[in-house]
Amino acid sequence: MGEFELIERFFKRPARRNALGVGDDCALLSPAPGMQLAVSCDMLLEGRHFLSTVNPLKLGHKALAVNLSDLAACGAKPLAFTLALALPRVDDEWLEQFSKGLFALADEHACELLGGDTTRGPLNICITVFGEVPKGSALLRSGARAGDDIYVSGNLGDARLALEVFRGSLSLPAELFEAARARLEQPRPRVALGLALRGIASSAIDISDGLVGDLGHVLRQSGVGAQIDCGAAGTLMDAAAALDEERKLEFILAGGDDYELAFTAAASQREAVRAAAEQAHTPVTRIGRIEAQPGLRLLDRDGQPVARHYASFDHFA
Amino acid sequence: MGEFELIERFFKRPARRNALGVGDDCALLSPAPGMQLAVSCDMLLEGRHFLSTVNPLKLGHKALAVNLSDLAACGAKPLAFTLALALPRVDDEWLEQFSKGLFALADEHACELLGGDTTRGPLNICITVFGEVPKGSALLRSGARAGDDIYVSGNLGDARLALEVFRGSLSLPAELFEAARARLEQPRPRVALGLALRGIASSAIDISDGLVGDLGHVLRQSGVGAQIDCGAAGTLMDAAAALDEERKLEFILAGGDDYELAFTAAASQREAVRAAAEQAHTPVTRIGRIEAQPGLRLLDRDGQPVARHYASFDHFA
Repeated sequence: MGEFELIERFFKRPARRNALGVGDDCALLSPAPGMQLAVSCDMLLEGRHFLSTVNPLKLGHKALAVNLSDLAACGAKPLAFTLALALPRVDDEWLEQFSKGLFALADEHACELLGGDTTRGPLNICITVFGEVPKGSALLRSGARAGDDIYVSGNLGDARLALEVFRGSLSLPAELFEAARARLEQPRPRVALGLALRGIASSAIDISDGLVGDLGHVLRQSGVGAQIDCGAAGTLMDAAAALDEERKLEFILAGGDDYELAFTAAASQREAVRAAAEQAHTPVTRIGRIEAQPGLRLLDRDGQPVARHYASFDHFA
Repeated sequence: MGEFELIERFFKRPARRNALGVGDDCALLSPAPGMQLAVSCDMLLEGRHFLSTVNPLKLGHKALAVNLSDLAACGAKPLAFTLALALPRVDDEWLEQFSKGLFALADEHACELLGGDTTRGPLNICITVFGEVPKGSALLRSGARAGDDIYVSGNLGDARLALEVFRGSLSLPAELFEAARARLEQPRPRVALGLALRGIASSAIDISDGLVGDLGHVLRQSGVGAQIDCGAAGTLMDAAAALDEERKLEFILAGGDDYELAFTAAASQREAVRAAAEQAHTPVTRIGRIEAQPGLRLLDRDGQPVARHYASFDHFA
């Protein structure tokens, strides 16, 4: 099967938003009046971002999910995406499953494939995603202010737990493992929460490299510091019972691959945050406070400093 | 050097069009009122799209050039791009040269880097490019009509000639080789010509997989056929003297990696095409005619059919 037949067979669908559909030199997108286009790009490589044994249906889901998560963190509504795919060989069954997982999530968010590129090479999936957000309404990393509350959506640390089981450094009862594995392989981008938080959150970021590292970007870009209540954060892990306290906290604070939102909001917005979370059917937990003093301070249940250093996940480390 | 330092050092530049600059979850783009956004995406892999020995400065140029060529083929004005880069290792000298070549071409077209992704892995460069075009003015593959003239910009076949020298299947005098090599390694996207052809050309495509294959897309999507005058096409190669007639025609018609524009225009537009080419400082050559009868017919100097079949370059072949 050649390049064009492959696209025709697995990736061509009726055009909707794009005036052209897949198959011209460019796709054409028309953002609505008054809207800014939010653009983000993530590349996923076998062995680095996913295991070679992963189910291609789940991989198709995840490749788009991590990109939608960036839109969620900006409060942008998904519109469309491009897909560039390098494949070691043309494997019908693999492509069928991959495209099925990809389009299932795309359809859920009415996010249209605009076009892309396919080539032979080491497995590599590069997606660029487009969303729209009213001018001036995007949730930025630079908006956190001293006194703001810090929140996290959903759960943290379970994806890392599953990764450690795959790596053989841990073992888990089957049921816990399946739940953790779903978090690693099929993250749910928090798009609805991002939209509901427009005008309420003062800053937001999606947690892909671990809470401490990603929150660090918000602190630096906002010119502030923070304290985190490890007692509150410690409740964020689903399968926490499987771990000792130290490991649990490490996975929650610096696990990576969570694709939850960390966001800040003025204390006066607590009721609004609660309502937004309810509207988005997404649990959120208040875990700390922004402070004027730079740096991130971790406090234990008794308000005592936690000395340990948590490193951010680095794709070159 | 980690992921963030790498981005900071080699790829961070002052934000202009993007409201945020590199470093938030998304970039924000605001197309001008009445404009559509043209989007295209190309992935380049070592060994398939470029040789491992290529000068990284030239590679930076080419990675963006092949994407700008898609904008040119739509008559879109370059605005911005995202870059996802997988690197086997962090090599300062390589990154310095790569980013220098990339930004030199980007600056020439006032095309801004919006953001992207870097990771460790087999060398892979994935660029998504954004341009703008007034609503309804994009040059499409579907607009060719029976009776239209067929044109090609610049030269064809020289890039393939250089590739064959690298492959060892041919040898060339040094001077001819350097000229051909520049065509392979540093293609000039025909952006100015694409813009000048708005409202004049009835269809356009950029030639990346060879003239015959790419023109085939135009014919299929326009529901027409064509005849090509191989006598006229035969003049398109610079270093033609180095080859026998058969090989020369093969490289011109199906060489690949040309990044010239093939376009069609009504016969009544000949003077307008000439003026557009002059305005864009880009030579164009009329090489054939669109016909109602489907299929592509190659005619020799005497108007006799050329029997040979020319296959399109296929990245899965």
